[in-house]
Amino acid sequence: MSGSPSDRGTEKPWGGRFTVAQAPLFERLNASIPFDHVLAPYDVAGSRAHVRMLASIGVLTSDEKDTLLEGLERITEEVAAGVFAWSLTDEDIHMAVERRLTEIVGSVGGKMHTGRSRNDQVALDLHLYLRDAVAGHQHRVLDLMKALLVQAQQGLAVIMPGYTHLQRAQPVLLAHHLLAYFFMLQRDWLRFESWSATSWMPLGSGALAGVNYPLDREAVASELGFEHVAPNAMDAVAARDSAFTYLSVATGCALVLSRLAEEVVLWSNQEFGFAALPEEWTSGSSIMPQKRNPDGAELVRAKSAGFLGRLQSLGALLKGLPLAYNKDLQEDKLYVFQSREELDLCLGAMTQMVTGLEFNAERMRTAAEGSYAQAADVADYLVSKGLPFREAHRVTGRLVAVLSERGTPMSEAALTELRELSPLFDSDYYETVSLERVVESKVSPGGTATGRVTEQLSHARQVLDDLGARV
Amino acid sequence: MSGSPSDRGTEKPWGGRFTVAQAPLFERLNASIPFDHVLAPYDVAGSRAHVRMLASIGVLTSDEKDTLLEGLERITEEVAAGVFAWSLTDEDIHMAVERRLTEIVGSVGGKMHTGRSRNDQVALDLHLYLRDAVAGHQHRVLDLMKALLVQAQQGLAVIMPGYTHLQRAQPVLLAHHLLAYFFMLQRDWLRFESWSATSWMPLGSGALAGVNYPLDREAVASELGFEHVAPNAMDAVAARDSAFTYLSVATGCALVLSRLAEEVVLWSNQEFGFAALPEEWTSGSSIMPQKRNPDGAELVRAKSAGFLGRLQSLGALLKGLPLAYNKDLQEDKLYVFQSREELDLCLGAMTQMVTGLEFNAERMRTAAEGSYAQAADVADYLVSKGLPFREAHRVTGRLVAVLSERGTPMSEAALTELRELSPLFDSDYYETVSLERVVESKVSPGGTATGRVTEQLSHARQVLDDLGARV
Amino acid sequence: MSGSPSDRGTEKPWGGRFTVAQAPLFERLNASIPFDHVLAPYDVAGSRAHVRMLASIGVLTSDEKDTLLEGLERITEEVAAGVFAWSLTDEDIHMAVERRLTEIVGSVGGKMHTGRSRNDQVALDLHLYLRDAVAGHQHRVLDLMKALLVQAQQGLAVIMPGYTHLQRAQPVLLAHHLLAYFFMLQRDWLRFESWSATSWMPLGSGALAGVNYPLDREAVASELGFEHVAPNAMDAVAARDSAFTYLSVATGCALVLSRLAEEVVLWSNQEFGFAALPEEWTSGSSIMPQKRNPDGAELVRAKSAGFLGRLQSLGALLKGLPLAYNKDLQEDKLYVFQSREELDLCLGAMTQMVTGLEFNAERMRTAAEGSYAQAADVADYLVSKGLPFREAHRVTGRLVAVLSERGTPMSEAALTELRELSPLFDSDYYETVSLERVVESKVSPGGTATGRVTEQLSHARQVLDDLGARV
Amino acid sequence: MSGSPSDRGTEKPWGGRFTVAQAPLFERLNASIPFDHVLAPYDVAGSRAHVRMLASIGVLTSDEKDTLLEGLERITEEVAAGVFAWSLTDEDIHMAVERRLTEIVGSVGGKMHTGRSRNDQVALDLHLYLRDAVAGHQHRVLDLMKALLVQAQQGLAVIMPGYTHLQRAQPVLLAHHLLAYFFMLQRDWLRFESWSATSWMPLGSGALAGVNYPLDREAVASELGFEHVAPNAMDAVAARDSAFTYLSVATGCALVLSRLAEEVVLWSNQEFGFAALPEEWTSGSSIMPQKRNPDGAELVRAKSAGFLGRLQSLGALLKGLPLAYNKDLQEDKLYVFQSREELDLCLGAMTQMVTGLEFNAERMRTAAEGSYAQAADVADYLVSKGLPFREAHRVTGRLVAVLSERGTPMSEAALTELRELSPLFDSDYYETVSLERVVESKVSPGGTATGRVTEQLSHARQVLDDLGARV
Repeated sequence: MSGSPSDRGTEKPWGGRFTVAQAPLFERLNASIPFDHVLAPYDVAGSRAHVRMLASIGVLTSDEKDTLLEGLERITEEVAAGVFAWSLTDEDIHMAVERRLTEIVGSVGGKMHTGRSRNDQVALDLHLYLRDAVAGHQHRVLDLMKALLVQAQQGLAVIMPGYTHLQRAQPVLLAHHLLAYFFMLQRDWLRFESWSATSWMPLGSGALAGVNYPLDREAVASELGFEHVAPNAMDAVAARDSAFTYLSVATGCALVLSRLAEEVVLWSNQEFGFAALPEEWTSGSSIMPQKRNPDGAELVRAKSAGFLGRLQSLGALLKGLPLAYNKDLQEDKLYVFQSREELDLCLGAMTQMVTGLEFNAERMRTAAEGSYAQAADVADYLVSKGLPFREAHRVTGRLVAVLSERGTPMSEAALTELRELSPLFDSDYYETVSLERVVESKVSPGGTATGRVTEQLSHARQVLDDLGARV
Repeated sequence: MSGSPSDRGTEKPWGGRFTVAQAPLFERLNASIPFDHVLAPYDVAGSRAHVRMLASIGVLTSDEKDTLLEGLERITEEVAAGVFAWSLTDEDIHMAVERRLTEIVGSVGGKMHTGRSRNDQVALDLHLYLRDAVAGHQHRVLDLMKALLVQAQQGLAVIMPGYTHLQRAQPVLLAHHLLAYFFMLQRDWLRFESWSATSWMPLGSGALAGVNYPLDREAVASELGFEHVAPNAMDAVAARDSAFTYLSVATGCALVLSRLAEEVVLWSNQEFGFAALPEEWTSGSSIMPQKRNPDGAELVRAKSAGFLGRLQSLGALLKGLPLAYNKDLQEDKLYVFQSREELDLCLGAMTQMVTGLEFNAERMRTAAEGSYAQAADVADYLVSKGLPFREAHRVTGRLVAVLSERGTPMSEAALTELRELSPLFDSDYYETVSLERVVESKVSPGGTATGRVTEQLSHARQVLDDLGARV
Repeated sequence: MSGSPSDRGTEKPWGGRFTVAQAPLFERLNASIPFDHVLAPYDVAGSRAHVRMLASIGVLTSDEKDTLLEGLERITEEVAAGVFAWSLTDEDIHMAVERRLTEIVGSVGGKMHTGRSRNDQVALDLHLYLRDAVAGHQHRVLDLMKALLVQAQQGLAVIMPGYTHLQRAQPVLLAHHLLAYFFMLQRDWLRFESWSATSWMPLGSGALAGVNYPLDREAVASELGFEHVAPNAMDAVAARDSAFTYLSVATGCALVLSRLAEEVVLWSNQEFGFAALPEEWTSGSSIMPQKRNPDGAELVRAKSAGFLGRLQSLGALLKGLPLAYNKDLQEDKLYVFQSREELDLCLGAMTQMVTGLEFNAERMRTAAEGSYAQAADVADYLVSKGLPFREAHRVTGRLVAVLSERGTPMSEAALTELRELSPLFDSDYYETVSLERVVESKVSPGGTATGRVTEQLSHARQVLDDLGARV
Repeated sequence: MSGSPSDRGTEKPWGGRFTVAQAPLFERLNASIPFDHVLAPYDVAGSRAHVRMLASIGVLTSDEKDTLLEGLERITEEVAAGVFAWSLTDEDIHMAVERRLTEIVGSVGGKMHTGRSRNDQVALDLHLYLRDAVAGHQHRVLDLMKALLVQAQQGLAVIMPGYTHLQRAQPVLLAHHLLAYFFMLQRDWLRFESWSATSWMPLGSGALAGVNYPLDREAVASELGFEHVAPNAMDAVAARDSAFTYLSVATGCALVLSRLAEEVVLWSNQEFGFAALPEEWTSGSSIMPQKRNPDGAELVRAKSAGFLGRLQSLGALLKGLPLAYNKDLQEDKLYVFQSREELDLCLGAMTQMVTGLEFNAERMRTAAEGSYAQAADVADYLVSKGLPFREAHRVTGRLVAVLSERGTPMSEAALTELRELSPLFDSDYYETVSLERVVESKVSPGGTATGRVTEQLSHARQVLDDLGARV
């Protein structure tokens, strides 16, 4: 093998018709091996199933099968040990594996590619990769749900202000607030779970038309753990909806994390002072010695923007692509690989941060007591005395206006001034505006009354049991 | 009610504490009624269920319930008849309905809002809207699948070039190509179907903390057709994952349509000449009298970009939003409403275009015969004679190089020159390179052999039966 | 004209070759008149210039010119008066104008379209529209810069905590903080200003190849105020970089507004309590009478997500579009029109909110005094005594750790304990940690020392003078 | 240095207040050194200017200055030689450089950080990096413009069909088509050129408030080649509009490339057959020996989707970020670095592909002759005989309808049938429909007549001269 330009074209497995080598810049643009090498385990697993099936339908002899499987086993070991030699001239993971296989077992290695093409092969690798990614995310989502549940259990007696529009709205239990994230994450878990229903086994589709062998694709699907075989070869190689859906669900999950991260940033801000991150999850400043910055939470928040961008990239990539395989599809892996790695990182980070958060119950309660957050309950109090809701709302609004003008809390309004606003006010007003009373009155299912939050905690434990069992 | 500035604040149902009116520019920025009026039927449906439930737990009397339901019925009629008077000062759909209700039934109208807030109300409206949107899309997806199936049945005997990289790759049946889209759309249908599993009934969550009544939320859920009640009030009002998932699935479907649209544009281009759109789906040029432009297909392709953008907008909107409700969430409706309308439009348009497409079987076959698309089969032929696949590929590549140099089709290669390349070539080579033979040899499940495509057609009919029954 | 299906095709100006009418769904998908009617003034202006030029080169007679210009004048009046009758069957703004013109002036109206096509016509309309949009934004950006400057001038003596990572970092003047936004907006203004350099006059390009008349395109450009004529007809009709650049700059500006809006939300939150929005820029709650929500700021923040999405949509739309005009380009207007309207709305809203903000100087100062925000200056103090910076940082970090453990402010550290940490501490330490001293020591250009901020204010006034003169 | 957990916090330059080490997962999430090491040359350049300035204002002695500059010089050499030892515990590029500097020059190395923070330092590094990126892109844009010009010059006599809606529209010269891209790229060049006007020198802003030294920021700006000093410290460290604008312009350029790439894909498709990529810019298939796939063009098209996504990511990242520095800003570099590398790659690839394209003039001309692309000129012919344009369009439309029904080209219509449609037709009709005549009649400036395209070529050469001189 001389390596002269006019020969080098023939080094590629597809080089027969070519007389000149690829342009170096083209090779750099074209090669996916710098990133798709992470597909090696999936590529080998698919090849293993393919080889067994080829033998079962008589395309390979039993000896050939054994030889090939042994070679693949050795490749698995080399990859795992980090001694597999990657090369840019391999172009992609499939060629790298086959090249190495042929080095190990000789020319019989070439027979492994019978009855398939790189188009269905990479589609299979991607499905297998995504399935692993999904399972890993589900595992980590459950970890975070557990961490939230633990903190919620400890925060069952802690009253904090609940906000809408970032304005203090009504007092709630800390447990109530944290459980909101628990249930958001449960839905993310469920969406990950439903991902596999549209992941159909593509191998055996050839380049786009099927292949010249009556393959036993059901056997391959069964060995690889798929429920469905892709029924149409062109669809199987050209579609990337499994990746788009994966990125959508991952992005949705990252957005939930970004909201929780934002709250961690707010809570650990000095004006709020509701919580402190554990020291090992903060950074200092090169110039301000007092700083303990919540970099971890900020980065989780920031990284959700990366998910959004990658989802967009894949969408824009797929837009208007005619059938069947186009080289554009090579780029999908960049988005998928990075999102998988980052979601695992963000979930792990958020789990540790949630676990380590130290809440300041006193600051929270003090904040809850301010700002007339009992006003809705005063309105309800007037309703219970017979006023239509909208009128009760109006009277209470005037009361808040009067009191806040001079800084008087609700609990210190004089009965006389109350009665000027409405004759329905009576001394039971003062009980109404106690913080505990306000919280405990939220008795609707899903509400923040202790009993209702206790129900939520039980429900959450049950959810973990159920999902944990299914993972 | 004088309308003087100092009074106007009190016109709002929440105006009690306010002494001055909203700035006109703020009112324009803030009001959602210009778009959320489409939520009217869902708002009324939710209110009806809420009123019945309030009566069942004794918060409303039976008479009050009847009065309110009658008022709501009248509003339904007014909306349906297009005589409901919308006003910017109503701010949003919920206030418009309550304002009108109070006009109709008097001050008892104000009692309808007992035990809920606009936060859980709008969440409910959105869930109901999305459910309708999803059902409508599923219906239209099935229509398009049917149209594709009809064309595929007619194209069972038509041979066309299959492309990869937009280069002629292997001959396929037109039916095989069209069915690829059928199965892509089936997966979209399935994704729409799984949407509802994470749509949990939010009403009864109040502003964020629950409400002061032991509501029967299960009864409301049951009347409104939900399987699950949202277990946490903050989650219920703050989450928009149902909308994000909806937009993700809708966008994925729009991307599939954009790919089919691109093919319609290519096929009806004069160089391809594979198909013609029905005249009523083309436009002319103001300056070039000969033009028949595929504007419909171009617009379906283009509109997928709008879906991507709206998905991005909702994602960026949600990023880093702390709990619970924030006004930002008002904007979600813009993205959702437009996507629903446009997906229905695109699905309908594509169904009519697919139905009307006239394929030119002769042009397709001629194209398939060119360009050595039988080369993969020649390689397989050599494999069947004992050559390892990679070597067979190499020999065939050289054959193509030699033939294409002088423009000779594969079927006209001389046996002598074949044998110069490999002694394995024999006269059965000529049978191998017949177009029918190449197609029929793709016998793997999902392949383009007539028998396999016939299987696909049966399978597709079965799918339609199954899904149709479930719609 | 009977209106029977077989005739209706001919109603279109391009209908000559067509025998059947457009499908109703196609007409709905295809028509741009529901949104592009806002181009009417630009379309008429372009037509006016075109007609004058056609006369100047002898294609129209002087009488024809006058007749056409009078007709166009009447259309201008009808549009301005809101009495122009739009119709979906007009398909787009260009046809609507020509249809009406022909109604007014008779068949000579048809001559106006000589030497142009809708492709170059819509490109021209879009350039003119964008130029107006840009000028309007620049005007409103200056208004907001003025509002910020006014508040900054009033906040020259107000000390507040400056934040990094939303952690109190160093005390700054309120003026310093507000001026940051002033200068960000100045750069947005400059970017809008440079937009026109790549806006080249497209009219006279015909459909894509030029036209059969030696048009005087320079004259048209000159009448319409363009500096450059597009030198290539295909580029002129196919490019949309002027729109993409416009959306990029508008989006960048919207992002700046979103950051300021976030601060308004934070500042008016009760934990911060730094500022209050004017009552007319807040909303109440239907259920919580005490609420004053900063909906305006939240919506400005939210709407930046819409800009991002529309920028993405246009980008994805343009991706991979072959030359020259494709119908996809019709959709660009949706993104552009909405972004223009919303940016004007957001700029106007933010200007009013900034103008109306009432800052609470006391709360800000109190916040600045907490949290050891003088620490960087203590480190510098040690540096001035000879310690290398990194060591000074370390000693100060330990000091903060010790003091914050027991809640002692920096100003109350005992000299003895200071000296335990470093013998370099002396009684001048106490002067160092005074808030005014810390602020005034930031004497680098652009720093927060009063003198430096005064410089910034002067500079800002100068900028307004300079830019104002150019608008 | 023991490495025990309780000590490790103090290893960080900001570790003074910290008692425990960072969590390993946090360190992995937080560290930017894996990517920001590419900033090393810029970081050192900024440090050099900073050190000189500190000496000039007396903060450093002349000896200290010399020592530090020598140390920085050595670091430059180590980085250039690839022997600089990066470590994750360095956290970021700034700390890595300072750590190494201190190793080289001892504790005086710590003095370099006087009067700055990492916040202004990274802002400076980014501005310098972007400026280099912009200059590199401009250089490569010019290369591609040159390649297009060379091909255009060779294609001056080649007639091809111009398309709208991908339908043959009017015949154009190949040069005309290629020059469209030339001028699009010129505008991209101009946008890159205007980038620097809003790149203001940030160093000397400290963390957000300025620093305690009367720095000579103008001197630093001058040494580093900036025209403007950022006038406000908070703006200087918190803004990323320079990056957002950079990504916008880069994305716009990538979209232009994607359109050209799409045309290369179409032209090298067998149905078109208009051009062939050089063999070294094509790939083969592992299964189909005849394939020569335009992978390079497909990847350039695909990669534009990556640009769109990264632009979105940065936008979503910036949305709603309060002042001043937040850790989120660390992620901006990921988007910027990747876009720079990929744009250089895509521009280089496209330049080589354009240079190597071999056009098939015969196929193009044949295609141009089909499909009645002369119809617009026939309409103009009728106009020249006195028919209003719209009526001429109608008559020609009917003519095309009649001729295409039986496959007769325009040049073979019988005069009798022409006159049935309009008595204005005469024997000069036949001259009108010659392809050369149609092309040459497009005499408007910017049109496709040879004379006009020759003008364009001259203009393009002039543009290259002008821009080349400025690069």
